[in-house]
Amino acid sequence: MQFANRLNQLETSAIRELFKLLGKPGIISFAGGFPDSAMFDVEGIRDASQRVLQNEPGAALQYGATEGYNPLREQLAAFMASKGVKGLSADGLIVTTGSQQALDLIGKTLLNPSDVALVEAPTFLAAIQCFRLYGPQVLGVPIDAQGVQVDQLEAMMVLHKPKLVYLIPNFGNPSGAMMSLERRLKVLELAVKYQTVVLEDDPYGDLYFGDAPPPSLLALSDQVPGSRDWLVYCGSLSKVLSPGLRVGWMVAPPTLLARATMCKQFSDAHTSTFAQATAAHYLSAGRMPATLAAVRRVYGERAKTMGERLTSELGDALQFTQPKGGLFFWANLTGAGGHTQNGSVLAKRAIDKGVAFVPGAPFFANQPDTSAIRLSFATADLDNIREGIARLGQAL
Amino acid sequence: MQFANRLNQLETSAIRELFKLLGKPGIISFAGGFPDSAMFDVEGIRDASQRVLQNEPGAALQYGATEGYNPLREQLAAFMASKGVKGLSADGLIVTTGSQQALDLIGKTLLNPSDVALVEAPTFLAAIQCFRLYGPQVLGVPIDAQGVQVDQLEAMMVLHKPKLVYLIPNFGNPSGAMMSLERRLKVLELAVKYQTVVLEDDPYGDLYFGDAPPPSLLALSDQVPGSRDWLVYCGSLSKVLSPGLRVGWMVAPPTLLARATMCKQFSDAHTSTFAQATAAHYLSAGRMPATLAAVRRVYGERAKTMGERLTSELGDALQFTQPKGGLFFWANLTGAGGHTQNGSVLAKRAIDKGVAFVPGAPFFANQPDTSAIRLSFATADLDNIREGIARLGQAL
Repeated sequence: MQFANRLNQLETSAIRELFKLLGKPGIISFAGGFPDSAMFDVEGIRDASQRVLQNEPGAALQYGATEGYNPLREQLAAFMASKGVKGLSADGLIVTTGSQQALDLIGKTLLNPSDVALVEAPTFLAAIQCFRLYGPQVLGVPIDAQGVQVDQLEAMMVLHKPKLVYLIPNFGNPSGAMMSLERRLKVLELAVKYQTVVLEDDPYGDLYFGDAPPPSLLALSDQVPGSRDWLVYCGSLSKVLSPGLRVGWMVAPPTLLARATMCKQFSDAHTSTFAQATAAHYLSAGRMPATLAAVRRVYGERAKTMGERLTSELGDALQFTQPKGGLFFWANLTGAGGHTQNGSVLAKRAIDKGVAFVPGAPFFANQPDTSAIRLSFATADLDNIREGIARLGQAL
Repeated sequence: MQFANRLNQLETSAIRELFKLLGKPGIISFAGGFPDSAMFDVEGIRDASQRVLQNEPGAALQYGATEGYNPLREQLAAFMASKGVKGLSADGLIVTTGSQQALDLIGKTLLNPSDVALVEAPTFLAAIQCFRLYGPQVLGVPIDAQGVQVDQLEAMMVLHKPKLVYLIPNFGNPSGAMMSLERRLKVLELAVKYQTVVLEDDPYGDLYFGDAPPPSLLALSDQVPGSRDWLVYCGSLSKVLSPGLRVGWMVAPPTLLARATMCKQFSDAHTSTFAQATAAHYLSAGRMPATLAAVRRVYGERAKTMGERLTSELGDALQFTQPKGGLFFWANLTGAGGHTQNGSVLAKRAIDKGVAFVPGAPFFANQPDTSAIRLSFATADLDNIREGIARLGQAL
């Protein structure tokens, strides 16, 4: 059987291979990229789903508009307004089957095989693969703890004339970086100056541990005239409420949103109306603030403990910036003390010692940094974090 | 903003334009392509969703495998076995976000812009558009009330060397046709002879009114050696249980299924686990046989009444075969008595008289039959069917 040429662009994920080893009994895993199931507000979701089936079973179980279930679109517009986004009405966004689908729809709507897409180096692995399926060249722009390096970004925009710039300004997977306000404004200026679509992916923005991060690019766009015309924003309930609902959303300029909606129509018709209506009832019940407070507190404690232990157990063999939110530590093996500088080598040794994480190299679209590793603190409790990092020290 | 070239292949749907007129008060609509909300087993779905959130909230609200929620895959494999499919285990199928997504994944996995895809003429409009987004030429093969005309199909396979043949053997949208057993076996032979993927889309197969249709191509594939290697089957709970759950499934040869799964990973990660777990509990509770019996009875009565009234009210100005299942009448305006032979003309006049249906021309990938119309009997009760067809007679 002959498959489509676009599949040649896909790489088998080294991480997927690693995950096969995780079944070993007694492994403490920092390898995942998901929230802790114990944090789900099951009672709130149960109440919401019951109200849906009592009050509006016909609508919730029937086909719905591709754009999304209107009561949910209204709740999401209000949620965005509460985070400083001005002038967004329900018809300025569509509901997507997780924010992963929003990335896919933007790829489908915008990218030709002759195009270039710029992403952060490192960035979300599934974004690289998703864009590659539409044929473009995907190139990484260097980042640091303050997010994408805007001078380098501008140089690459001049050189490569990209069709799309994909950024995760808040606590990105895997980098954990938080883009500074100054850089956010600069990115908006670059979008206007080079008439280039910027895709802001923001699944982690509500998961901050201390002060809130700077406003989103979308919220800041009214400070940079014309920037809203080039800005796409993707949000998700997956990291703060439940990934299993598969409810994300996308804000985009009207012409782009209309075309993405058309592509969605032929991708999955619409997102589960049952899941959408459940999410709408959950939001309208006003439970989200308490849910967010709980996840911020628990993940914040776990991040603090992991940071302390990484320092005490691995010392100067590991370099990292303490994340201010999200789910991840991003760290580099320095080679100090003659220890390994290779993340993949350490990952294999760590499995033998009973702890798992993922090497950082696969998160680069090109020129991988083999000294990098990613550790998630989201799903292990404090005792397991202490024990797991001790094992990591032994593996090193 | 420059969009991707693939969007140039899309046509604005004439049907979409017509739907904007349906808001007029008092319209009786035969235009929809969806089941009757009043037939949904709300109690059964409520029970299933409650058991899910009581028994397995962590799994149902968490990320899941791209392939699908295993208890659902097992239920679906058993469901297929009950319909005569042999040797299908849970890992021989994946769960999709409605069967629409299965079509999209097959397009993404198989179709290059240089390829040809053959579809029935007429066929499911969203299939044509979905395939076109991957660039191939989409060509229609003539059908009649016995399904695709296999001699013409073979001739076109020889001439065009298609990458994919897309068929709806049972009560297709819009044709309502039911492919004969003889033709089913011939299609399987052609798949092997020309080493060509055949995609069997079967959302309506359980909606029969009298005898069950012949076995699916998938069930028949063990009678034609080698045919299973070229066969993809798509099923859906949308027409028999609830479209709003967005639960479909796809059976395919292992190499193709693995690649489609990879494409799904980057399309939406996975289908809502909450919806999947709800569907799994619904199926395991054994409610499906009673649900199927109810929809068969109600839609069967409606189809019978609509057929009688079409004959009595429109006489020889309209030609059709009484459908044996599904949701649709497919009919041709004959021009007898000097009446219009144009489906679009009649559709506009019908709206003025207070009844809606869709013209048939958009359902053709090419060479549209402008005399065709599609009428759904699924959502109007018997009184409305009688009144609506009387109005249609007046419009004519």
